[in-house]
Amino acid sequence: MITILSGGVGGARFAEGVVAAAGDEVVVIVNTADDEEFYGLHVSPDVDTVLYTLAGLGDWDRGWGINGDSFKCNEMLGRLGLENWFKIGDTDLAMSLYRTMMLRRGLRLTEIVEEARRALGVGARILPMSDDRVRTIVKTDAGPLPFQDYFVKHRCEPKVVDVVFEGIESARPSREVLEALRSADLIIIAPSNPVVSIGPILSLQGVRDLLKHAKATRLAVSPIIGGRTVKGPADKMLIAFGIEPTAYGVYSVYSEIIDIMVLDNTDSEIAVKIEGKGKRCLVTDILMRSREDAVRLARTVLEQAGRL
Amino acid sequence: MITILSGGVGGARFAEGVVAAAGDEVVVIVNTADDEEFYGLHVSPDVDTVLYTLAGLGDWDRGWGINGDSFKCNEMLGRLGLENWFKIGDTDLAMSLYRTMMLRRGLRLTEIVEEARRALGVGARILPMSDDRVRTIVKTDAGPLPFQDYFVKHRCEPKVVDVVFEGIESARPSREVLEALRSADLIIIAPSNPVVSIGPILSLQGVRDLLKHAKATRLAVSPIIGGRTVKGPADKMLIAFGIEPTAYGVYSVYSEIIDIMVLDNTDSEIAVKIEGKGKRCLVTDILMRSREDAVRLARTVLEQAGRL
Repeated sequence: MITILSGGVGGARFAEGVVAAAGDEVVVIVNTADDEEFYGLHVSPDVDTVLYTLAGLGDWDRGWGINGDSFKCNEMLGRLGLENWFKIGDTDLAMSLYRTMMLRRGLRLTEIVEEARRALGVGARILPMSDDRVRTIVKTDAGPLPFQDYFVKHRCEPKVVDVVFEGIESARPSREVLEALRSADLIIIAPSNPVVSIGPILSLQGVRDLLKHAKATRLAVSPIIGGRTVKGPADKMLIAFGIEPTAYGVYSVYSEIIDIMVLDNTDSEIAVKIEGKGKRCLVTDILMRSREDAVRLARTVLEQAGRL
Repeated sequence: MITILSGGVGGARFAEGVVAAAGDEVVVIVNTADDEEFYGLHVSPDVDTVLYTLAGLGDWDRGWGINGDSFKCNEMLGRLGLENWFKIGDTDLAMSLYRTMMLRRGLRLTEIVEEARRALGVGARILPMSDDRVRTIVKTDAGPLPFQDYFVKHRCEPKVVDVVFEGIESARPSREVLEALRSADLIIIAPSNPVVSIGPILSLQGVRDLLKHAKATRLAVSPIIGGRTVKGPADKMLIAFGIEPTAYGVYSVYSEIIDIMVLDNTDSEIAVKIEGKGKRCLVTDILMRSREDAVRLARTVLEQAGRL
């Protein structure tokens, strides 16, 4: 079994590639620290991005939401005088309504996503990292901002000073997450933001230790190419933590919990440096411009891990 | 001030005519006993029909929802495995999200609708009949059905045995409703279902008495023409109560609380009968096929009441 740790866009694209290359024996553990309440609904941006992408409903170019979706409800919320900067499409909204209803009925987030992925015909399993509430707060020069405020409303413009995960001390990874890490023979950290996407998953009690001592082969794919983030604010966040915003910086975050670091051809010099530290590297074209790119990258990674 | 008692479609169309004819010094008191929870949201079908109609957003032919709306969210709810026979359009959904959010924040239904009608540029006031929960249950040969189940899911097909308004004993008309009835110089019962639309309003503590002793001129427009309901199940419901499903039956429900009964030309014989009982009648073309019809009907009614 292949277990992937993922945030939103980058992780979702990569997971789609892995499923296309290796079939449905895949579990994707997804960050939920970006979850937020909007319009009275529990919104799980990363989980839904993975869900829609694996269901073939995603919008590849935009990276979030549903392909061809409209925003009529969102516009009307604006007409009614509500802040509506968080755009949820009309089809997309159904998932948040469904999740909110089911949470109120007492189901766990994990059970709700399991029902939804089956209903949408997704073969791979998608696991929210936890059924407990964790909330990423980005501390900035404009004050502390919940992640979606920083990311969507403020377009990552305020300078990042620190990032904290509210609730992380008491949150537990679900039993399904622990089982997926224990039973995997390959664990891949997707090219997601190491700070706000993978960070919360690794910060859940016991997860980093499980990875450290896992029998599985463990890989991480860099979300940074040539010193630039493919999408999102990973570089700014690494800088705030005093980590260089390069594939080497990403490697330094994961060095104790991976066997193989996957980097872009552009970063072959960094690969030499990492190999000098005794860590195996896979250097290939890691930019996913299309579904085909994602499948090709997944195949290369899986071959390297001896899985194809 | 003109105060209208209204249900959904028929009342909304008539209210639009009155506002067009008389201006914004109009208050529409709207039935909320058809309110229901769908998809975790508080849905107020009659209030929203009046709101959208007066905002110029309504769908005249369909009679509910918003003109040109799409149903993407509703379709996705179905894909996720939920019963989705209650169709809420994507734009329409925003109002139910808004109402549900604001109710959770502790606002009264009355305050929420007041905010919404201002936001949508509606000059006339729209008052939910009560801020308390009343729920119409239609007792049928297929068992007791909440109104929307009977009306939408079962398309009014089961035989009506009885109709009860759960919660009506403890529900209070809002202070705004009482004020609108006390200060009106003209009270019009719109051509709405006398049993399930106007019935709950009149059943609220003190309302029937206020109408009975009002100084205002009081009119009722028949929702039944030539022994047939224009829209909806009013005829079936009157029969269940042993009342003949004609304009005369409607008159008999209102006889103690109105000064003038408004009937269709088709029912001129019934008008003669009602006048024989000493009640004034206005006989005109009461069918509203278009906005123009509604305005013409409103003008005729207002002229008769000495208001134009």
